[in-house]
Amino acid sequence: MAPQLDGYFKQVDNLSDHFIERLRKAVAIPSVSADEARRPDVVRMGEFLADELTALGAQVEKRPLGKQPGLEHLELPPVVIARYGNDKKKRTILVYGHYDVQPAGKEDGWATEPFELTIDDKGRMYGRGSTDDKGPVLGWLNAIEAHQKAGVDFPVNLLMCFEGMEEYGSEGLDDFIKEEANKFFADTDAVCISDNYWLGTEKPCLTYGLRGCSYYSIEISGPGQDLHSGVFGGTAQEPMTDLVRILGSLVDTNGKIQIPGLAELVAPLTDDEKALYGDIAFTMDNLHESLGSQTTIHNDKENTLMARWRYPSLSVHGIEGAFSQPGAKTVIPAKVTGKFSIRTVPNMEPEDVDRLVFKYVDEQFKKLGSKNTLRCFLQHAGKWWVASPKHWNFSSAAKAVERVWGVKPDLTREGGSIPVTLTFEQATGKNVLLLPMGSSTDAAHSINEKLDKRNYIEGIKLLGAYLHYVAEEPMVEQ
Amino acid sequence: MAPQLDGYFKQVDNLSDHFIERLRKAVAIPSVSADEARRPDVVRMGEFLADELTALGAQVEKRPLGKQPGLEHLELPPVVIARYGNDKKKRTILVYGHYDVQPAGKEDGWATEPFELTIDDKGRMYGRGSTDDKGPVLGWLNAIEAHQKAGVDFPVNLLMCFEGMEEYGSEGLDDFIKEEANKFFADTDAVCISDNYWLGTEKPCLTYGLRGCSYYSIEISGPGQDLHSGVFGGTAQEPMTDLVRILGSLVDTNGKIQIPGLAELVAPLTDDEKALYGDIAFTMDNLHESLGSQTTIHNDKENTLMARWRYPSLSVHGIEGAFSQPGAKTVIPAKVTGKFSIRTVPNMEPEDVDRLVFKYVDEQFKKLGSKNTLRCFLQHAGKWWVASPKHWNFSSAAKAVERVWGVKPDLTREGGSIPVTLTFEQATGKNVLLLPMGSSTDAAHSINEKLDKRNYIEGIKLLGAYLHYVAEEPMVEQ
Repeated sequence: MAPQLDGYFKQVDNLSDHFIERLRKAVAIPSVSADEARRPDVVRMGEFLADELTALGAQVEKRPLGKQPGLEHLELPPVVIARYGNDKKKRTILVYGHYDVQPAGKEDGWATEPFELTIDDKGRMYGRGSTDDKGPVLGWLNAIEAHQKAGVDFPVNLLMCFEGMEEYGSEGLDDFIKEEANKFFADTDAVCISDNYWLGTEKPCLTYGLRGCSYYSIEISGPGQDLHSGVFGGTAQEPMTDLVRILGSLVDTNGKIQIPGLAELVAPLTDDEKALYGDIAFTMDNLHESLGSQTTIHNDKENTLMARWRYPSLSVHGIEGAFSQPGAKTVIPAKVTGKFSIRTVPNMEPEDVDRLVFKYVDEQFKKLGSKNTLRCFLQHAGKWWVASPKHWNFSSAAKAVERVWGVKPDLTREGGSIPVTLTFEQATGKNVLLLPMGSSTDAAHSINEKLDKRNYIEGIKLLGAYLHYVAEEPMVEQ
Repeated sequence: MAPQLDGYFKQVDNLSDHFIERLRKAVAIPSVSADEARRPDVVRMGEFLADELTALGAQVEKRPLGKQPGLEHLELPPVVIARYGNDKKKRTILVYGHYDVQPAGKEDGWATEPFELTIDDKGRMYGRGSTDDKGPVLGWLNAIEAHQKAGVDFPVNLLMCFEGMEEYGSEGLDDFIKEEANKFFADTDAVCISDNYWLGTEKPCLTYGLRGCSYYSIEISGPGQDLHSGVFGGTAQEPMTDLVRILGSLVDTNGKIQIPGLAELVAPLTDDEKALYGDIAFTMDNLHESLGSQTTIHNDKENTLMARWRYPSLSVHGIEGAFSQPGAKTVIPAKVTGKFSIRTVPNMEPEDVDRLVFKYVDEQFKKLGSKNTLRCFLQHAGKWWVASPKHWNFSSAAKAVERVWGVKPDLTREGGSIPVTLTFEQATGKNVLLLPMGSSTDAAHSINEKLDKRNYIEGIKLLGAYLHYVAEEPMVEQ
């Protein structure tokens, strides 16, 4: 039975100015987690959230995370956790968001003051954090308030986890989530994260997969110090010569990874999955526009989306220790470190990837017959994540999208990683849904970040509607 | 007939403290040409030289070179030119040196104050410029003074050309030399430059060849801006992938250049030349020590010296535009520029080298089938120089070495370039000799630069003796 949502929706519309004011207050707090001097503002933003939640009747705790690793004089901002509702007969949904933001300054090229919400005549609400992630975080608070003012019973128990260090690597959060999985988060039935974006600007999506990332260094050293190429060129084996040869053996221009065994780890494409790509609202023009060029590997949408979402890729990022300035320098660098990473997908186990990478790099180096010294090592690895989009968590969200936006959402994956997603899935053992509010043009980490008023207000309706469908959806998991 | 040199030699020994004081005064003037704030000191150093030369009875001029290109508020330091003697019956020798020095500061790790000449108990005279090139420049002045005080007739007319911008690319000097070739330098019979070093520490050498250098950039661009490897990895052709493949195709670990046609430009090794290498005072241990490792291409002296002096080499210096910092960054750089250079030797014409390089890089890029854009261009080229070591200029110097040091000098070439050498040869049409004063351990551009007292004092004797042999040597050129 379709839930009764008209009263709630109407109330959201009535309260829209109030909700925008709430966002304005939040954007005005420059909670930049990467800037040590802004740490008090990050803490203040956490307090703002906690106060608003308390005023709405939630049970709120500000949990300390201790000192910041490497900056021990600095206290990490607290995780704000909250519970709204504690009815054993209702499902319990755990939502995550973050209240810190990326750095921003007028001098970077912003057209408006980054910490003053500025709304233009097309309803674009400019301000740092508007879409990443203050708008979505406030979306949950607004949904609670609209239910209260509309006199509509809140359909689920809502657990909230809002951190203040997401833009700086979520310091300390993983351990916290694991620890609370059987405590504060113990009765979680499913998880919902609103911290990503639509694939385009018109069609909402639900995101069920993210690629992982294994980041490697290849260090090659020989001489005791940097050398002059006039004096030593022709007499010394040069580490750069070896390094560019190895880096050049990793992947070809069309993205084909040359490391044997890697492709065999990738889960085969099923007919079911293949059928999904055709309908996705995405065109090659979208890609050309975001790329700023026509230099794509594939010429069609399906292969492009699969290459981004469900196949691995390898990128060479750069070289440390070599000459990297403009101009000319006749140096033979003594020690150079090439950096590359592999975006990983099901079913590539990070340990298997490491093993194949180390073996291949070692073989390539041996082929060179070099007297230099090779060291290849993993800098960091984050695993891919793929959820079942047939879970009731997703079908609830899909119905909510159809109700609010009048269209079936695209089921998407993303090429990048949001590590906390996997952490929640592993710690709670429950299905995790990524339910974005903003669109592809929101410029999350760039200048002129914005959230469209429409995405914010309809997004609040969507979050509430999702919870209503969650309450009604049969407990069928696939 | 061997010239009478005992009186001169004895006078040099008698005046040695005075000559060291002269060097102390010169080192005390921090004439750092690369440091704008030190420009008045560079000018002061030029005046010091001019005053000393005038006091010795030379005809001296300080020639302005105009504004410094790119720093138009800055006047270039003058070229100090001088003539000592104007006897038509004598030969005229043009000598070159420079009175500016490399930057130096105690904070760089100097054990002593860099601009205070500090002599240790082994007679090592530490100070910036002691060996590069104030010691050798003052050597000529000291030779004049010792002749005067010994009452020995100066055997030649001496033309001097001392510049103040050598450590900053000899701004303006080339044009000056070309212009004066038929004026102030018109009666030059041969040129002598004392601005390089012995191959080792015990055996003097005469240097008759230098490699040239052609420096290239390979720029590859594609996307409109740097991309996130999570979002775009697998969908965009990455300029770095193309670049490392091309850089990896240029040369192998053992220094073999892969560019077809290049080896064919190299002058074949004659039996005469081959015979020279065996006697050179140089061991693989010397190379290992200066290299700081055992990572050599060749395992024997002869092939190592030939690889350094008479064969081309190719070094990859680095990449501009890619990630070059410590740590990890998941960037796909939009535009990357690889830098490499080729050390050139007879008979490689720079234009031929360019043509072969451009053709090869273009072919390698075409093989990749990339949609990215390639631009390969020459940054700068300096030609190799090789003089005839059988010219009377060299045989005079060889006899002088044997007289002063009691040993036949090694005939050496160098892997690096001293561009002014070729300029003097081309402008005057005369034989140019490189006659070093200091040894391989002098650390010219490093911290703790020094000149051994022995090399300085015996070097003064050598410069004077060379001029006496020049006066007696028959005019036979081969």
